[in-house]
Amino acid sequence: MNTRENILSIFALGGLHEIGKNMYAIEYSNDIVIIDCGNKFPDESLLGVDLIIPDYAYLVENKDKVRALIVTHGHEDHIGGIPFFLKTLNVPVYATRFTLGLIELKLKEHKLLRESELIEINSNSNLTIGEITVNFFKVNHSIPDCLGMVLRTPQGNIVHTGDFKFDLTPANNEHSDIQKMAEIGKEGVLLLLSESTNAERPGWTPSEQMVGEHLDAAFMKAERKIIISTFASNISRVQQVVHAAQKMNRKLALLGRSMVNVVAVAMDRGYLTVPDGMLIEPHEINKMDPEKVAILCTGSQGEQMAALARLSTGDFRGVDILSGDTVIFAAGPIPGNEKNVTSIVDNLFALGAKVIYGSGSSSGMHVSGHGYQEDIKLMLTLMKPTYLIPIHGEYRMLHHHRMLAESVGVEQENTFIMSNGDVVDIEDSIARQTRKIDAGNTYVDGGDVGNVGEFVLRDRKQLSEDGMLMIILTMNKADGKIISEPETISRGFLDRDFAELRKDINRITLKTVNELHEANKYNRNGMKKQIKKAVRQYAYSQTKKKPMIVPIFIEI
Amino acid sequence: MNTRENILSIFALGGLHEIGKNMYAIEYSNDIVIIDCGNKFPDESLLGVDLIIPDYAYLVENKDKVRALIVTHGHEDHIGGIPFFLKTLNVPVYATRFTLGLIELKLKEHKLLRESELIEINSNSNLTIGEITVNFFKVNHSIPDCLGMVLRTPQGNIVHTGDFKFDLTPANNEHSDIQKMAEIGKEGVLLLLSESTNAERPGWTPSEQMVGEHLDAAFMKAERKIIISTFASNISRVQQVVHAAQKMNRKLALLGRSMVNVVAVAMDRGYLTVPDGMLIEPHEINKMDPEKVAILCTGSQGEQMAALARLSTGDFRGVDILSGDTVIFAAGPIPGNEKNVTSIVDNLFALGAKVIYGSGSSSGMHVSGHGYQEDIKLMLTLMKPTYLIPIHGEYRMLHHHRMLAESVGVEQENTFIMSNGDVVDIEDSIARQTRKIDAGNTYVDGGDVGNVGEFVLRDRKQLSEDGMLMIILTMNKADGKIISEPETISRGFLDRDFAELRKDINRITLKTVNELHEANKYNRNGMKKQIKKAVRQYAYSQTKKKPMIVPIFIEI
Repeated sequence: MNTRENILSIFALGGLHEIGKNMYAIEYSNDIVIIDCGNKFPDESLLGVDLIIPDYAYLVENKDKVRALIVTHGHEDHIGGIPFFLKTLNVPVYATRFTLGLIELKLKEHKLLRESELIEINSNSNLTIGEITVNFFKVNHSIPDCLGMVLRTPQGNIVHTGDFKFDLTPANNEHSDIQKMAEIGKEGVLLLLSESTNAERPGWTPSEQMVGEHLDAAFMKAERKIIISTFASNISRVQQVVHAAQKMNRKLALLGRSMVNVVAVAMDRGYLTVPDGMLIEPHEINKMDPEKVAILCTGSQGEQMAALARLSTGDFRGVDILSGDTVIFAAGPIPGNEKNVTSIVDNLFALGAKVIYGSGSSSGMHVSGHGYQEDIKLMLTLMKPTYLIPIHGEYRMLHHHRMLAESVGVEQENTFIMSNGDVVDIEDSIARQTRKIDAGNTYVDGGDVGNVGEFVLRDRKQLSEDGMLMIILTMNKADGKIISEPETISRGFLDRDFAELRKDINRITLKTVNELHEANKYNRNGMKKQIKKAVRQYAYSQTKKKPMIVPIFIEI
Repeated sequence: MNTRENILSIFALGGLHEIGKNMYAIEYSNDIVIIDCGNKFPDESLLGVDLIIPDYAYLVENKDKVRALIVTHGHEDHIGGIPFFLKTLNVPVYATRFTLGLIELKLKEHKLLRESELIEINSNSNLTIGEITVNFFKVNHSIPDCLGMVLRTPQGNIVHTGDFKFDLTPANNEHSDIQKMAEIGKEGVLLLLSESTNAERPGWTPSEQMVGEHLDAAFMKAERKIIISTFASNISRVQQVVHAAQKMNRKLALLGRSMVNVVAVAMDRGYLTVPDGMLIEPHEINKMDPEKVAILCTGSQGEQMAALARLSTGDFRGVDILSGDTVIFAAGPIPGNEKNVTSIVDNLFALGAKVIYGSGSSSGMHVSGHGYQEDIKLMLTLMKPTYLIPIHGEYRMLHHHRMLAESVGVEQENTFIMSNGDVVDIEDSIARQTRKIDAGNTYVDGGDVGNVGEFVLRDRKQLSEDGMLMIILTMNKADGKIISEPETISRGFLDRDFAELRKDINRITLKTVNELHEANKYNRNGMKKQIKKAVRQYAYSQTKKKPMIVPIFIEI
């Protein structure tokens, strides 16, 4: 029996100081419960990296304790890391019916579906994992079938909200379990993990129904084809598009792989109702009257390979956007995507389309799935936690969440603003932020996990800005004497002819080598270093560029 | 006498379908007048490129006709291309006193000041250039001393607005010449070139005075040091910071090279008044009571090397941001800069600072310098042009500008939505968009202009994402037979050891070479092509990466 026997530990492996790769863990005695396993998309500084997932080395080290992965909902930042995680640790995955549908799509792609253990839960499920029992409550968000949960432990009750907003008139009529939340609060919440995305925004999040009203109005007004782009996973919004199309007697075509796949999962599992005969194939679009067709497609974030981007440049085979068509962005740009979106808007205007777009909810065609300040305060008021860990947010969001909590009665020192890997230990119902475990980013680059690190990324950065010079020298194996003239090859450096510069570089290389020989300092690595230094200085003085310099010695 | 003798031609070499590198030209008979010569900053797809300037090959071809470069104001997107342009075509530059001050800073850096011909003008100046006379009118913007102009030509009057808003209570008390504009309009405007930046925004641009009120309030409330970041060139805002500091009896320190330089120009030329003894040096900050100091610095756009970014990470020698300090972003993020700004906001909150920030004018600390829809309509109403060319904007802005013009009486077909290089020819006072001249982007990469093109950029992109493999083969010069085993070097490809993969690549290379030899197909280039193909396929199958493959043959 070790000394940590009765301590309850809580930490994040992802999701703190970032939007993305959410992964939280509750550890008690011999049991670890994981909540979510998401991914994050790299910014432009991570050249060539495809995905970022949490570094879960701690869980691998403690693999005998890991009992379950519970998933709150099916967004990428909550499920995108699952295939990689299951390849390492094949633990049972608990999720709702719709969420499991999306996880299955992923596992199929990774050819992992067969060996994975997927267990369907709903808001009435009751799990017992070692000394922890878990119960659930429904929350509203921007994807169906979302859960929050209470984990009852010998140290007290821990609540994890999942991603949430309070939508009193949700488009899918699936209401939050507000009464259940109040009961949990009344029973007593020792610690609340609550999401922080919109902690900077005053007021309440608008209802999804608002989007439906604007969609209906736009459908009424449109005279020719309608093209609507939104997140495939926002099934409530897709349902509202279906309703609008139905009212105006339009057929609906789906474009984009994820739209087709996710809509199929949603229809198959009963989360989306589409009237018989409404869906048409893309190749049928051109055969119909423009005023009788609507197209629902991916690409609302300006993704270059998605359907909308290709439509906007005329590169979608068989479907054209023509003058007088109406294009609706039924999703605001996520921060960072603004420029890609507006460049598509430009193309669409140039095609003569009427374009309905805008940031946030300004066009009426988007509402956030994350609660604003009043939603967050309502959650705190329902739960009345002793301790709070704001999760799911960048630093300023966590910081604002703490201030909101203080305004509704959570003492400031009882809110823990943590980083990934920081651990809160609870003993005798007292929580303390004490220690730190390893946590960080794991890069998925190409097909593989963890094959790229800072070293290669630094090289890629230099190559991307200044290119490289390879300087090839053939020399005698015995004494290092030059056999043939140096030769310089470049890639990504200068475009125009640089014969003069190349001659100079070869001359400088030769001079450097000869000087070292005269001083009797022949040593492969020392010589390479000197060549690099001399050529780097010269190249910079002539071009203000700092190419990577790779001396290649052939010894014969 | 050629046939184009009496035709007036108008075109842009930059500024259309973009925000940046403004350069417009008016050509009549043997005279060309240039208006502005700006630069633009590259997006992340232009790896390693430092700046983009207009391609002015047409002007070089017609250099004997180019009489003058008239500059409307001193922002980078209007003056940043001047040093490069003057190196090619040394024409006289006409600009106001403050604008000239900023141009001189640039020319000094490029060591061009001495040979340049700079001519100071003001709103009462009268220029005669060939058969064209030019008069000016003052406009409000976000930098001092801005001009619009009317060019009187034998074909009619052409008006160029410069960048403008209508601020009836400008902070510097320099009012727009609205009456003069009305007179010009009454005299008759054949064609108006008017800026379009905010053509999508309804209403009027708020007055710069609003920022002053918010600054005063924030200074009243602040208990410790105040750090304010804004554009150095926004001298009205700098002046308002000076006033706020004066009222609260705080000293002011300037951080950041462009802040120091531009403030010096503004003070020297009488555009900024700072009480004696108010300015202190950075090293004096720590010696003073925090409640007696304010710091004005660069970096409001999140620029990584600017003062504010360095302050936020504790990397500014001698100056620290401490808990309780107030940091004010007195400039909203330009689209595309949001992420860099919020990451600095995060750092500042983590230091315990109070941070006042927000997009656009939501924090009250920023107003746009570009007129909103009502400002644009007022300009159109004052000028009542027969023809309109919306300038200075991306496509959707030009498009909205056309709709605004239609709403105040400019016929839709009389608005020309053009691209850079499109020419409007006017003959007998009838304007037609007819022909196209060369126009495009010229990249400044390193110290040099035009040394990088699509080819090198494509290489850099591949290198940046997938790195490269160099495969070195030593062979007999006579028959191409292999002398020593192939050797593979990589850069930017994989991090972890890939000894196995490297062995496979060497084996595949050898196999490819031997097969070609057996088939008697030795030919350097053919062999390199086959090696690239075989190795590329294999590397992709193993790693899902597509490194650049460079076979290097050493023939002895």
